[in-house]
Amino acid sequence: MKAKVFVSLKPDVLDPQGKVVMQTLNNLGYNSVRQVRVSKMIEIELDTADREAARVELERAADKVLANPNTETFRIELED
Amino acid sequence: MKAKVFVSLKPDVLDPQGKVVMQTLNNLGYNSVRQVRVSKMIEIELDTADREAARVELERAADKVLANPNTETFRIELED
Repeated sequence: MKAKVFVSLKPDVLDPQGKVVMQTLNNLGYNSVRQVRVSKMIEIELDTADREAARVELERAADKVLANPNTETFRIELED
Repeated sequence: MKAKVFVSLKPDVLDPQGKVVMQTLNNLGYNSVRQVRVSKMIEIELDTADREAARVELERAADKVLANPNTETFRIELED
């Protein structure tokens, strides 16, 4: 089974990488760009066909390993 | 208008970050994890309501700035 875990900074947390990308785009003439936030998309292949088990394992992995609970949030998408 | 640009390594390009995440998960007992690839999700706010103009600008920005055309591919999603 394939899944995606999206790990994003919480809205109140500054994103210096996003700021640099935005300024670079503006400097290069992409003037309609107003805000940029950079997140991670982690694509995972799991050796199970049990969707419920996969979701439980991914929730734990995201909470304990993939995301920093102090500054980040995560969202899990299981593929069909 | 909001949009997302997903920037991923081409399938043939090694992803050391993904490999480290996979090994870490396996070491910690997440044994059903078989493969991990880490990509970027870049969320962009654009100061335009013109979907076609937004798509053209984002295609150019992704091709010229956000992705490395030698090693990465990108995909654009415009939000409604």
